Amino acid sequence: MTAYQREPDTGVGIVQRQHMTWAAPLQLEGGGSLAHVTLAYETYGCLNASASNAILLLHGLSGDAHAAGHHSPADRKPGWWDAMVGPGRAFDTDRYFVICSNVIGGCQGSTGPASRDPGAGGPARPYGSHFPVITIGDMVRAQARLIDALGIGRLLAVAGGSMGGFQALEWATALPQRVRGAILLATSARSATQTIAWNSIGRQAIMRDPHWRGGDYYSHEPPADGLALARMIGHITYLSDVSLDARFGRRLQASADPAFTLGPEFAIESYLDYQGDIFTARFDANSYLYITKAMDYWDLSDRYGSLDAAMARARADFLLLSFDSDWLYPSSESAAIATSLRRAGRRAEHVDLHSDAGHDAFLVDLADQELIVTAFLAQL
Amino acid sequence: MTAYQREPDTGVGIVQRQHMTWAAPLQLEGGGSLAHVTLAYETYGCLNASASNAILLLHGLSGDAHAAGHHSPADRKPGWWDAMVGPGRAFDTDRYFVICSNVIGGCQGSTGPASRDPGAGGPARPYGSHFPVITIGDMVRAQARLIDALGIGRLLAVAGGSMGGFQALEWATALPQRVRGAILLATSARSATQTIAWNSIGRQAIMRDPHWRGGDYYSHEPPADGLALARMIGHITYLSDVSLDARFGRRLQASADPAFTLGPEFAIESYLDYQGDIFTARFDANSYLYITKAMDYWDLSDRYGSLDAAMARARADFLLLSFDSDWLYPSSESAAIATSLRRAGRRAEHVDLHSDAGHDAFLVDLADQELIVTAFLAQL
Repeated sequence: MTAYQREPDTGVGIVQRQHMTWAAPLQLEGGGSLAHVTLAYETYGCLNASASNAILLLHGLSGDAHAAGHHSPADRKPGWWDAMVGPGRAFDTDRYFVICSNVIGGCQGSTGPASRDPGAGGPARPYGSHFPVITIGDMVRAQARLIDALGIGRLLAVAGGSMGGFQALEWATALPQRVRGAILLATSARSATQTIAWNSIGRQAIMRDPHWRGGDYYSHEPPADGLALARMIGHITYLSDVSLDARFGRRLQASADPAFTLGPEFAIESYLDYQGDIFTARFDANSYLYITKAMDYWDLSDRYGSLDAAMARARADFLLLSFDSDWLYPSSESAAIATSLRRAGRRAEHVDLHSDAGHDAFLVDLADQELIVTAFLAQL
Repeated sequence: MTAYQREPDTGVGIVQRQHMTWAAPLQLEGGGSLAHVTLAYETYGCLNASASNAILLLHGLSGDAHAAGHHSPADRKPGWWDAMVGPGRAFDTDRYFVICSNVIGGCQGSTGPASRDPGAGGPARPYGSHFPVITIGDMVRAQARLIDALGIGRLLAVAGGSMGGFQALEWATALPQRVRGAILLATSARSATQTIAWNSIGRQAIMRDPHWRGGDYYSHEPPADGLALARMIGHITYLSDVSLDARFGRRLQASADPAFTLGPEFAIESYLDYQGDIFTARFDANSYLYITKAMDYWDLSDRYGSLDAAMARARADFLLLSFDSDWLYPSSESAAIATSLRRAGRRAEHVDLHSDAGHDAFLVDLADQELIVTAFLAQL
């Protein structure tokens, strides 16, 4: 997903990644536990005296704790939601204390399959194939430790798109007393069959790459081809056919006439190749496996018997934003959540925004989103 | 794509694959030529004395010449369009002489990358990486040789879905005097950006498989993992989210509870794995590369300046069928072709059928299609 860019000096400025570690094992939904869980996180703005102005941002599959600002003046790209976070922006750091942490299972500072396995005998060794399968619930229970440690009882809001929306829904239903407002963007209360299918093909691409070695590749060359393929597939599901046609069409990358070779030739092909390959420089293939698996297990209706029953647990006010060209998490999914919330007597505002940007819209088509989120937060 | 099944004894019965070879080189659109081109084909019914009842069926990406009947009594599955071809069926073999040939570049008997390269020095060697990149136009010019050899000047009809529709359009515009009726199903006059993207990712999966060896793998293990991945991706694009949800939902394949492992677990995952792996037993990875590349180059508007200009070349009557859940070749593509045909004064009947089956509908949702095709053919 492409980040919307603004001048760095108008945002939160230079920020630092922080870490917190807990010795007590985190019990996991799938059985077993994780000891010495570390979360990487960033904060923007200041917590007020009553600890009532905290907003937790929740990232998607390939995101990280770096939601806003730059890590150094030389940093080329700001955080993934930079245009939404800062003084005077939707998540206004003059008013709110904004937190974002990398999920467990990730590879951007939080405990994940590439982290050192404290249970391994002998010399230090990464988890690799010994990392346990985790769930969205596990991710959120790890985050709750961070929120506890920061001295925050109740969050003013949780907010996230895509898998970040899963986590926001998990917060609002598993820990309802701790959430005053929930902002869900381009998300769903369950992974649909097609989502599982795309995730599964991505995992197969990684696991069929001979460099994957059953997950224990950390002292060898990583399964970069498999991860690049998984990312290419994901990328197309994040865009719409309209935006692909407008941005790339049938344009050839390097010449006016077809080369009549098998290699990449169309601009969309060069773009995909590039997106696939740069992803491998910043993301761990095992994290891709564990996080997509957590996404596939996501189904609130199954957990609580029905979507109505799940939403009846919530105590927060809800804002749901969907985008009409998002075919991965179509508007109907948000509408279903909003209906169940209203049946349960909750305030639920659902806005289906027009955008050609597909699922990526929540990261790139920010003008309307910014206004709506600002207004929603002001009413909490 | 799944074939619609009927009892073998009500169809065309036992059929045999035939072959024809031409010594004269076939000049190719991308430059160069292919010598000793062989086409594998099947025929059903009898050519009449005036050679005016011939219908050419054109297959899609993974199809072959075996459109109907069984190759032996032990054959489990009939040809790919069996329910449409036979006595009393839409392509009525009591009235029509029906022909289907495997495309060049394919791997089911026609000349393709796995065929012996007649230009290779020394011992017999398959083309492999020396096979030239071909186009839809090349496929059709090879087919025209077969139609010539069968003594047919003008085809009563050409008919095909998906890439078969590309070929039908190519026949109708490149060889307009030779086509009286054209039946186009779930197709387009160009490969859209998203189609190129999916094809390209499939090719990358094959070409990044170390067993591909630059295309010269025929005396080694083939790139089965890459080809399986390409097929899995294709498969999802042929189905709709509604049909995926109805057929598989979130059902687990083997147990009631999640296993919390990284392996395939949901029914949709087992299905995809199975579809990917069985495909490798019947299809050649290089053929997948060459045929998808031919599809990507497909753009009639570019060739003739505009879709209107392309369609103004046609002399046939047209029937266009699209399916409302087909997101790979959406109805709008058929509508655009029909509009251009009408502007050119051609008869063009476009029916957008309801189906949940996605792009696959033209192979599986046959009830309406059968009636409409029957009526169209009767009017030619």
